[in-house]
This record gives sequence, structure tokens and C-alpha cells, in this order.
Amino acid sequence: MAARFSFVRRLSSSALAVRPRRTIMYVPGSDERKVEKAKSLDADTLVFDCEDGVAYAKKKEARSLIVRALEQMQFGRSERVVRINSMDSGLAEDDLVEILRAVNLPDAILLPKVETAEIVARFQSKVESLIPSDVTSYPFLAIVESARALVNIKEICDAGTRGKVHLSGLTFGADDYAASIGAVRTKSSSEVLCARQLVVMHAKAYGLQAVDMVNINYKDLEGLKAEAQEGATMGFTGKQVIHPDQIPVVHAAFSPSLEQIKSAKNLIKAFERHQAEGKGAFTYEGKMIDMPTVLQAKNVTDLAKAIGD
Amino acid sequence: MAARFSFVRRLSSSALAVRPRRTIMYVPGSDERKVEKAKSLDADTLVFDCEDGVAYAKKKEARSLIVRALEQMQFGRSERVVRINSMDSGLAEDDLVEILRAVNLPDAILLPKVETAEIVARFQSKVESLIPSDVTSYPFLAIVESARALVNIKEICDAGTRGKVHLSGLTFGADDYAASIGAVRTKSSSEVLCARQLVVMHAKAYGLQAVDMVNINYKDLEGLKAEAQEGATMGFTGKQVIHPDQIPVVHAAFSPSLEQIKSAKNLIKAFERHQAEGKGAFTYEGKMIDMPTVLQAKNVTDLAKAIGD
Amino acid sequence: MAARFSFVRRLSSSALAVRPRRTIMYVPGSDERKVEKAKSLDADTLVFDCEDGVAYAKKKEARSLIVRALEQMQFGRSERVVRINSMDSGLAEDDLVEILRAVNLPDAILLPKVETAEIVARFQSKVESLIPSDVTSYPFLAIVESARALVNIKEICDAGTRGKVHLSGLTFGADDYAASIGAVRTKSSSEVLCARQLVVMHAKAYGLQAVDMVNINYKDLEGLKAEAQEGATMGFTGKQVIHPDQIPVVHAAFSPSLEQIKSAKNLIKAFERHQAEGKGAFTYEGKMIDMPTVLQAKNVTDLAKAIGD
Repeated sequence: MAARFSFVRRLSSSALAVRPRRTIMYVPGSDERKVEKAKSLDADTLVFDCEDGVAYAKKKEARSLIVRALEQMQFGRSERVVRINSMDSGLAEDDLVEILRAVNLPDAILLPKVETAEIVARFQSKVESLIPSDVTSYPFLAIVESARALVNIKEICDAGTRGKVHLSGLTFGADDYAASIGAVRTKSSSEVLCARQLVVMHAKAYGLQAVDMVNINYKDLEGLKAEAQEGATMGFTGKQVIHPDQIPVVHAAFSPSLEQIKSAKNLIKAFERHQAEGKGAFTYEGKMIDMPTVLQAKNVTDLAKAIGD
Repeated sequence: MAARFSFVRRLSSSALAVRPRRTIMYVPGSDERKVEKAKSLDADTLVFDCEDGVAYAKKKEARSLIVRALEQMQFGRSERVVRINSMDSGLAEDDLVEILRAVNLPDAILLPKVETAEIVARFQSKVESLIPSDVTSYPFLAIVESARALVNIKEICDAGTRGKVHLSGLTFGADDYAASIGAVRTKSSSEVLCARQLVVMHAKAYGLQAVDMVNINYKDLEGLKAEAQEGATMGFTGKQVIHPDQIPVVHAAFSPSLEQIKSAKNLIKAFERHQAEGKGAFTYEGKMIDMPTVLQAKNVTDLAKAIGD
Repeated sequence: MAARFSFVRRLSSSALAVRPRRTIMYVPGSDERKVEKAKSLDADTLVFDCEDGVAYAKKKEARSLIVRALEQMQFGRSERVVRINSMDSGLAEDDLVEILRAVNLPDAILLPKVETAEIVARFQSKVESLIPSDVTSYPFLAIVESARALVNIKEICDAGTRGKVHLSGLTFGADDYAASIGAVRTKSSSEVLCARQLVVMHAKAYGLQAVDMVNINYKDLEGLKAEAQEGATMGFTGKQVIHPDQIPVVHAAFSPSLEQIKSAKNLIKAFERHQAEGKGAFTYEGKMIDMPTVLQAKNVTDLAKAIGD
């Protein structure tokens, strides 16, 4: 009985304990038309941007517009996230002061240019000082987008997963990363392969979501589809998008098909039947089925439940 | 003369100081027929399994059967290893108590789900308390099969290579790893490329063997051959197998060909001749031959000697 | 205004703050004819070798010849670097004592077999004790060429970038690395992919140059071209070469084309225009242009300026 319980415990330790973020859609915070338009977008997450999508002269405007959007607009089922400027930009503190005094807090903050555990700690302490004291837990996502971030990624995850203001996902900024190492971005993305896999590895080791890179060729939806599927295969749980047309393509890549869901359910049933009969590993459709394969099936059914398909 | 000695020292620091483990073959410890059959298998290593290959209701049966096999059966030239349940399963202590009281100790323990240095230390201390006090050195292999294991792999190797109960190899569990990061296993295994190369890198940095992933498609021997050769090319020293038919295919991939052995011997001879003549790097068959190339040739002849071909 | 300044600061933090080292050409220090010939070579960097390119019986001869070359020969625009023997060879101390008493110091030392931070510290302290006290800063490059070096690479960079004798670049020794992990070198170099990308990642995280592996097939210039271009795409800043014919091929791969320079300049101009107009991210030639893309363009123009094209 104890052993049986131990099995159930393991199956439920999936990395998908939080809301799905298959798409993280950037909306320039200073662009009223685009913020307005975001109301009709079906992204899992909307990111109202104060950082690179907003020119330096428009930072104040962006903050006010975002606060107004948070307080007065409805964005349907989409999560509302704000990307502030980096902690070393001289702008982050003002961003946080303005944004976190909104009556409706954003659902999370997206922190760019996270390079060290020290930056994480500084961010956490600032946010904690600004949010209402009855908020007992407040999530943020970190953008990993430089060589320095990658070499410090373990310490970043360690720092981020401690305390009330807690890391919920890692987002990979491939273009900024490539610029930081002097690499040239190619269609195959082989130049960032190792970095991408390290982001997934660390995210999952700490129970976090892993959000894959933007594809800036927003007109090439076929290329996007292939890249999104590759990311899903690698273990990413979602992808950053910059254009509304990218949303359905990316959703499809990060959602299991009906067939996959059915096959996963059948495999889990077969496993449970064999367990009840006192057998361990067994053969199913020509493959040796062991705990790992069952866990992969469980990931599929968990995600299916979470996205309500 | 001192310099000459220094050269010899470097050539002998090969990672292959232990017995070859080209194949690590899993045998469910609760299945009397399969344990019996293992006597006729030519695997370098046989792993009698108490973990995922054995249903929860059969754990006790497996332990008794394995102790009987260790004490009363002959497995030819094969190394006899036991895979216990993970240190956090609630089953490992009973596994160890039963298994290590066998009159003939297993040649090594295979420890699954090694995720932290703390788990390693707990295992070492338990085993040390159970083995006879005149056993001065007792080896184990660790299965690296989760994101958490990968991010802690250096600390795991550090802890494992200290003390009397010492780490002898890292074994990569690709399917469990893929499940832990939410990746989908593909034929190319590109989704676990970085993890595989990190396992080899750390194993070799600590003088350990590196044992590659299982191929669960046990009927596809062509696919197995390609995958085994790829693993050997990457630096793995062996591969886990789950079916008797996989053994000869994997042995072939991890053994140098007669041609390779001959070519390696010739290259080493040419190198020694040039050294004696006072030359350093030299040209041989159109390539610039330097110490690294000589070391690779030495790896080949070392392995050839160890497997007695 | 502060924000504007912050932008300029970021653009100038390029990794290319030091002299270009697109080619690092090895010259056996004991071979008078080759040292003489090096005067006519156009490599960015010439490495006079005391290590693997020199047989053990010829070490003293090499040291004297190199000192003579440093003091009496002109190598045009090429940087003059000396590769000493490894710190654990029993030869390094004599190498340094001899080489560093040259009236014209080498421009830098190339240290092979750097495996731990301790080795770095030992090297730094030895060099510091030997160079004239009015030399306030003295650079070295480290060769990363073993599994042990890779698992300690962060600590190596940390140690190297402290103090007066400071690390200026990481050089990847693929053949020695492959030998150390028991891998087989292939044309695709997939067996060292992860190691290569980790070298680039750490180099750039610490503001260092990253110098790619030697291609020992010195007659295959097409293969060299492809490999050099791949390295440049990955973020390497240069490549080790062992034959004069390799120099122009490698220079071409690591230099931006006139078209690339022009396109980069145009993109930066467009960015500055949009900034002045108060816009953030914008569309340019069908792609969404954001800070990372601008930074990549800046890398191109920086390099173009440094190599004086």
C-alpha cells in the first residue's frame, strides 16, 4: 500500500502545476491601439511591455496606459503580465512603483535581463515591498537572454524559487542571447541549441515552465510551426509570440492531439492493469513500457486537462 | 628523461581503468524464468532489477530470488549487478539489507534516481554499514535520469568518487529524463543531446564509465546499431539493453574493429619513432598528428586489450 | 536622457574590446625554418610553441629560438604569443623563466591543459613574479581541452579574470577533448557540439574571446571553410590554424562581408531614426527589429572597424 501511494505521488509531481502558458504574446505598452486590440486575442498570456518594445521617450506613457488597461479592460481568459525594464536600466523601480499600484495587480511580472542571483534578489525584495501585504504569493517569469544568465542559471533558479515573490517560469530570449555571444541566428537555430536545452533542463529541475524563443519572421507561419513543434518536443511548455497570426499555430504545437490524449490514456490504463496483476515493465504496441513512458503519458493527459480540450 | 616519463604517465591515464561494461542488461528480479535465462547471456554486465521492472507487490519476491541467484547460480564472465529501488522510495533500505547479506555480494549496485549529492551520501553510508568490514572498496553505478540529476551532476560525481563505496559509472536514463522535462522521445534523440553529452563530459572528468540510454524498440536492431554507434562516437563506453538480441549489436558498436586496432597501433608506433628522432607533431596519412590523436589511438588499444580481442 | 545614455552604454559593451584574433597560427618553437617563415605569414596571432609541437628532447632549443625570435625578428602586424608546456608537465616553470626574460616580452602566453582554477592561480602567480614590475597588465589565453576543464570552466574563468595576469580568451582543443572523453572525431563534429557551445557561452559571459578548434585536415580547404563558418555562426571569434594555407580561409569566415557591414550600418541607422521618433521595436525588411537584432548589427560594425576593412 505504501508503495502504491509512492507511485501516485510520483505521477502527480508533473511540471505543469501552474496555468498553461503555451503562448506569451508581447503587446507594446505605449501603443494604445495594440493594447486595445489585445482584448480580442486568444493568447494564454498577454505581456504588456515596458521594455524593448517601448522607446525611451515613451516609458511614462506606457506605464500609465498599462495601469489603465489592468484596471479598466477585460482580456478574457488571457493572463495579464507586465514586462518591466531590467533591474540595471535605471527604469525598473519606477516601472514597479507605477504598475504595482494598479487596483488590479498584473497576474505576474516578466523580468528581462536576469543575469545573476543578486538581480533576482533585488527584484524580489522591491516587489515584496510594493505589493499589498495580504498577497501571500506573487509569481514572476525571468528572461534568460545572455551568456551571463546561462552560466548563472542554477543560482538564478535557486534564488527565484525561494520566498513569496517566486519564479514561475524561464523564458529564453534567443536573439538577445545570440547577440550576447556574437552568434548569427540561423533557421535551424543550431547556434543556440545547447542554451535552449539548458534552459529546459534547469526550468524542469526547479518545477518551472520553460518558454521558447520568439520567431521574428512573423510572416513565415510554416517555419513557425516547425520551430514550435521542435520546442515542444524538447520539453518547452510554450513559446513567445509577437504577432496575432502566430497564436493559433503555437497553441496547436503545444497542445496534445486527440489521438495523443487517447493513446496516453490507454497506456496509463494498461499500466494500471499490469500493476494490479503484479507485473512491472510490460510490452505494449511493440515497446517495452516502463515508468518513464507512463510518466510521459501522464504529462500529456495533465496538459490536456489544463487547457480544457 | 623526466619529460619522457611525464608522457608515459599521460598515456596511461585512460578512462578505461575498470572492467568493460559495453552492455548492461536488465533482468527483472522477480521473474524466475528470466533470471534462469540470464545464465546463458553474454552481456558484460547483468542487472538484476528490484526497481521499475518489478511490480510493487513483488518486491520481496524479487529480493529473495536475487539473493538465491547470487549465491547459487553461475553467470559466466558477466558482472552481476543489482538495481535497488531509489533512496526516496521507502524500499531501498530493505533492498540493501536483503541483497547485501548474500554470501556472494553482487559485484556492484546500480542506484536509480540519483538527483543530489545528499542522496549519494545517504546511499554510501547505508551500504558501508552493511558490507563486511574486510571489503575495502565497493563500486556502484548511478542512473542520471531527471532534470534535477543533470543540474546537480558535478556535485553527484564529487560525492560519489569519495570514500569506500565509490561511483564507477554514470548511466543515462533517457526516457525517464525526457519524461522529467516533458520532452517527446524521437528517433534522432536530439531532444536529449545536451543531456547525453553532459553525462559523458562529467563521467570522463571524474574517470568514470558512461553508459548510454536504452533503446526500447527492441525489434529494430538496425536502429539500435546506429544509436549504439552514435553513442560510442560521443564517448559512451557502453549501453543499457533490455533484450538478449540487443547484446551482440551493442558489443559490436562498442568494440574497436581489427582495422581500427591495427591503425591505432601503427599510429602509436609512428609517434614513438618520431619522438625518438626528436620531432614533435608530424604528418601521417595526410593529417597533422599531435598528442590528442595519439591519445585517441591509445584509447582504442586499451579497450581492445580489456575485451580480450 | 539617462535612458538614452543607458542605451549607448549597452551598445558599447561588445565582447570585441581586444584585438581581433581570427587566426591563431601554431609555429613549432624548435623549427628554425618555420619560425623564420612565420615572418611572412598574415595570421592575426602567431603562437610559438613549446608544447606538443616540440619533442621532449628539443624543449631547451625551442626556448632559446623563441627568445631570439622575440628579440630580433619582426612579425609585421601579427601578435606574438608563446605556448608553454602545461603547469603539471614539470616543464612550465623553465619555459616561463626563459621566455619572460626576453627583452621584448611576448604579447601574451597561451596556457594549455587548464583544468582547474588552481592551475590558473598557480600560473598567474608564477608569471606575475617574472614580468617586470612596471607591466601593469599581462594577458593570457587558456586552452580548454579536457572533460575536467569543461566541468570546471566557470571557476577557470572566474580565476582567470581576476588580477594583473588576466585571461583574454578561451581556446577549444577539440582533438584533445575528444581523446579525454574517448569520443571519435567526425566530420560533423557533433560529438563535441555541447563542449564547443559551452566554451563560447562561458567566454562571452566573462567578456573573453572564443577561439575554435583546429582542423587537422589541412589539405581540405573546403571542409575548413565550412567548419570556420559554422564556428563564426556559433559565436567563436577566431580559429586555431596549423598551416599557412588555412589563414586566408579562416580570416574570410571570421570577417563580415561588405554587404553585411552595409546592412548592419543601415539597420542601426533605421533603429536610431525610430528611437528619435519615439518608436520601440519596428519592422525592417519583413522582420520585427528589436534591441537584440540591433546589438548583433553592432557586433558586425565593431569587428569591421577592428580589422580595419
